[in-house]
Amino acid sequence: MKGMPRNAEDARYRLQIAALELFTQNGFDQTTAAQIAARAGVTERTFFRHFPDKREVLFGGQEILSAALTASIRQAPADLAPIAVLRRAFADVTQLLEDNRRFSEPRQHIIAANPALMEREVAKHAALVGVVAGALQQRGVAPARAAFAAQAGMAVLGHALDLWFADGTRPLSQCLAEAFAELDLFVTPGHSA
Amino acid sequence: MKGMPRNAEDARYRLQIAALELFTQNGFDQTTAAQIAARAGVTERTFFRHFPDKREVLFGGQEILSAALTASIRQAPADLAPIAVLRRAFADVTQLLEDNRRFSEPRQHIIAANPALMEREVAKHAALVGVVAGALQQRGVAPARAAFAAQAGMAVLGHALDLWFADGTRPLSQCLAEAFAELDLFVTPGHSA
Repeated sequence: MKGMPRNAEDARYRLQIAALELFTQNGFDQTTAAQIAARAGVTERTFFRHFPDKREVLFGGQEILSAALTASIRQAPADLAPIAVLRRAFADVTQLLEDNRRFSEPRQHIIAANPALMEREVAKHAALVGVVAGALQQRGVAPARAAFAAQAGMAVLGHALDLWFADGTRPLSQCLAEAFAELDLFVTPGHSA
Repeated sequence: MKGMPRNAEDARYRLQIAALELFTQNGFDQTTAAQIAARAGVTERTFFRHFPDKREVLFGGQEILSAALTASIRQAPADLAPIAVLRRAFADVTQLLEDNRRFSEPRQHIIAANPALMEREVAKHAALVGVVAGALQQRGVAPARAAFAAQAGMAVLGHALDLWFADGTRPLSQCLAEAFAELDLFVTPGHSA
């Protein structure tokens, strides 16, 4: 977190690790903020300085992804088409996502197992699609077209992440290339399933 | 509603019209179920026989769309690729959507003006994408690929609806063709914005 001292960043990181371990072991509903704090070796007060509740421990990473995507979209060459801008942005965040896999993979399982978390994930994802669409609009893309590109693009990223989680051996960059290739196949009418 | 007598269907229809008129005139928050029932010329009890609350009046149509899409997906020729199955399904529901425009257009404005309704719309839309993905899976499409096709396909439908609402003169079928053509442009790398 920007502007936080190094030991605060460490505490935040330890809290995230501890939360994922406890959620995975005991279930999300059975885990308390106090237990997470204890496992991370910090006070409950420190927990609540970093996260408003135990749920938000699972969603902190999305702000970082959102900021990285919008920064890349802003910096893309002016003549690139919307989906090419997004392809470039996904390449720019690949390392960030690779570095984050030890969080994002267990996180995905925890969220999929809990309808309330799933609902929150859906809302957060929609917000992220909205942010990406807004960043495209700031490049002069018309609102409807920006929304569409953001939805289609984020569907590609989501599919790439699915492929990546399903197969522990391939780098994310390869899964992204495969997902874009599938989008290509989709638009070729009459192609066999 | 299947199995309901004709006058019950009429009441439901009148309730939907009355709700849209009142929400548009006075705002969603300022409108009560009792007022909707009064305007539709039915009792409040009749209102609650059709809808659990005033919010659900706005979301009843999605079940019909969901059923029509899944029926078409089920009946599509076995050798069609996922996106071709969806292209066909969208063509199959075009008349339904055209007939429903007098509801869906004001509905869209009411929902866009209210964050709580927007959140519900996002959740309902995600559920619809899930239903479409499930219907594709039943055709033998792998889960990750089915989810991706459903997301990309529903983004196309959403974009077509945006274009259609923005321009009162073109039929939905033409907006759908344009949205699919844009998806085509998107996947052509280096194409100019």
